[in-house]
Amino acid sequence: MKQEYIGSLDIGGTKTIAAICGTDGTIYEKMQFPTNRMDYVAHFTNCCAILHKLGEKKRITIESLLGVGINMPGMMDYSRGLLLHAPFASWKDLPVRDFFRNLLKKDTVFIDNDVKSCALGEKYFGLKNKYKDYIWVTISTGIGAALVLDGKIYRGNNNLAGELGHIKVEFNNPRICTCGKKGCLEAYASGTAITKSVLQAIEKNPSFIQKLDAKAYSHDAKGCGELAAEGDRIALGIYSDAAEYMARGFASVINLINPQAIILGGGVVNSIDLFLPEIQKRIKNYAVDQASETEIVKTRLGYEAALIGTIALVLENL
Amino acid sequence: MKQEYIGSLDIGGTKTIAAICGTDGTIYEKMQFPTNRMDYVAHFTNCCAILHKLGEKKRITIESLLGVGINMPGMMDYSRGLLLHAPFASWKDLPVRDFFRNLLKKDTVFIDNDVKSCALGEKYFGLKNKYKDYIWVTISTGIGAALVLDGKIYRGNNNLAGELGHIKVEFNNPRICTCGKKGCLEAYASGTAITKSVLQAIEKNPSFIQKLDAKAYSHDAKGCGELAAEGDRIALGIYSDAAEYMARGFASVINLINPQAIILGGGVVNSIDLFLPEIQKRIKNYAVDQASETEIVKTRLGYEAALIGTIALVLENL
Repeated sequence: MKQEYIGSLDIGGTKTIAAICGTDGTIYEKMQFPTNRMDYVAHFTNCCAILHKLGEKKRITIESLLGVGINMPGMMDYSRGLLLHAPFASWKDLPVRDFFRNLLKKDTVFIDNDVKSCALGEKYFGLKNKYKDYIWVTISTGIGAALVLDGKIYRGNNNLAGELGHIKVEFNNPRICTCGKKGCLEAYASGTAITKSVLQAIEKNPSFIQKLDAKAYSHDAKGCGELAAEGDRIALGIYSDAAEYMARGFASVINLINPQAIILGGGVVNSIDLFLPEIQKRIKNYAVDQASETEIVKTRLGYEAALIGTIALVLENL
Repeated sequence: MKQEYIGSLDIGGTKTIAAICGTDGTIYEKMQFPTNRMDYVAHFTNCCAILHKLGEKKRITIESLLGVGINMPGMMDYSRGLLLHAPFASWKDLPVRDFFRNLLKKDTVFIDNDVKSCALGEKYFGLKNKYKDYIWVTISTGIGAALVLDGKIYRGNNNLAGELGHIKVEFNNPRICTCGKKGCLEAYASGTAITKSVLQAIEKNPSFIQKLDAKAYSHDAKGCGELAAEGDRIALGIYSDAAEYMARGFASVINLINPQAIILGGGVVNSIDLFLPEIQKRIKNYAVDQASETEIVKTRLGYEAALIGTIALVLENL
C-alpha cells in the first residue's frame, strides 16, 4: 500500500511541535518551537508556515496530505471546533478549526484536546485493540483524562467528561487545588503535588536534601522517583501517599464506568511504574470486588504520545 | 394504530408483579405475589402461569404479545442472559433468558436488572427525549444506578458500570457498608442509612421519638422525611447530612461522566425532594464549575417505575 501522509501540530502550553507523519505512525519530519501565548494569530500562522516548510523538506504539499491533526492544550468543543478555554493563556472561545482550515486551505483538519488525542493514539498505535472501554490518564503538571467507550471518545454534555483530576479523594482537612476547590486528586498525585511533598519533606528532614543532592537528583517528583527506585524510605513514602490517592480516584472511575483498563501516561508515569502493584492493591479497598481487577497499565505510546495522537485524530475522523 | 401488548414481570427481592401492558405504557392487568426465594424454578414457572392467566383475562395469548420484559433484582450479564448474582437469595449464574424463552415459547423475552429497566423506562415513558446522557439513580434500601449514554444503556466491562452506591464519600472514620468496604455512599444516604441515623438520633435525643410518635410517623427514613418537611430541626439535620454525601457522590459522577442529568427514583426520593436545592448547592463544592449546573431531577415514572421499565426493555431490544 502506498504510504499516505498526515500533518501534525501538537500545540502545548510552552512549546509546539510540528511534524509530517505517516498513517502508520512514523514521524518523518519534526520541528519544535516555543508557543507564542501572547498572540495566537501569529502563533497559528507560524505553525502553518512551519508545516509548509516541513512538507517541502519531505517533498509533499499540504494539499496532498490525507489530513492535519492538531492538539490544543485546553478545553475543546469538538463538534463546533472551538477552543473554549486554555488555562495557561487568555485564549478563550477561539474558532480554531475554521481558522486552521482556512489558513491551510484544507477541509480535513481535525482539532482536539491533547489528552483526547493521546487516548485515540493508544487505539491506533499503542495498545491498539486490546481494550475498547478505557480511560487514558495523563499525570504530569496536572492530571487530565479522556474516556474511550466502545472505541469512541466520550465527551459528555459540556465536553467535560474525564475530569478525573478534580475527583475528590480527601474530605478531611483537604488540600486546596489550583482549580480553587479542595481535595482534588490533582492536588495530591500530580507532578506538581508530588514536588510539593518533596519540598515539604526537605523542610522537615534536612538529610533528605542531602540524599537527593548526593546523586544530583532534582528536588522534584522526578528526583524523588529516582530516589524511591533505590529504596529510600522518605521518597518511597511520598510516592506511597500519592499511590493511595490515585487508588481512591481510580476506584471511583472503576465503580462508575467499569472500564477494561486505566491507561497511564504523562511525565510522572515513569516514577509511578514502581507503584502500580501498590495502587492495584489499594484499589481493592475502594472499588467493588468484581471490578477491582481492572487493569492499570502504562501507555505504549511513550514520550511522543500527544504528537502520535494527532495522526490518530485524523484517522478517527476522516 | 392498533394497540400492541407486552408481558411484564418485575421480580423483586420480596414481591413479584406480573402484568399485561400496552406499548404506550398502559398497565391493563396486574397481579402481585410473593417472590419464592427458596425455589427459583418453582417461582419462575409460577410467574409464567400467572402471565398466561392475566393474558386470558385480557383475551390475548402469550404468543400474540410483542414481547415479554422481565426485571431481575440482581446483577445481570445482559449479553449472555445470565443472572450473575442476586444479593438477597442464593441465585447465582442462572441462565434466566433461555429459561423464560423456553417456558414461554417465545424469542422476544428480554431480561435485565431492574434499575437498568427504570433507566430505559424514563426514555420511553418518563422524561422521554429530554436527555440523551443521564444516570438513573434509585435510592431505597440500597443505592443503585444505571448509565444511559447517547441514549443507550452503558454496561461496562463486567456489567458493573453505575456502582454509584459504592463510590467512596468519606475517608475519615468511614462507616462500614453492607458490601464490607468503608465509606460508600450507600452507607450514608440510602433509606437504610437514613433510618440508622434516625435510630441514633432517637437514642441521643428522647424528644425526637416523641415528635415522631405524636404524628404517628414511622421511626425510619420516611417518618423522618415527613417530620423534616414540617421543619423539625433534628429531622432536617439528618437529611442535610445525607444531602452532603449525595452531593459528594453525584459530583464524582459529574466530574467523570458530565451527564446532562442525574435522575432520582426509589422510595427515598419523595423525602429527598425538599433537599434537591441543597444537594445542587453542595455539588458546587465538589464538581468542576462548568459542569456543576448538571440537573438533578426526580423521575417522572412514579411508583411503578420498574414495572413500566419492562415495557421499555422490550421496545429497546426488539
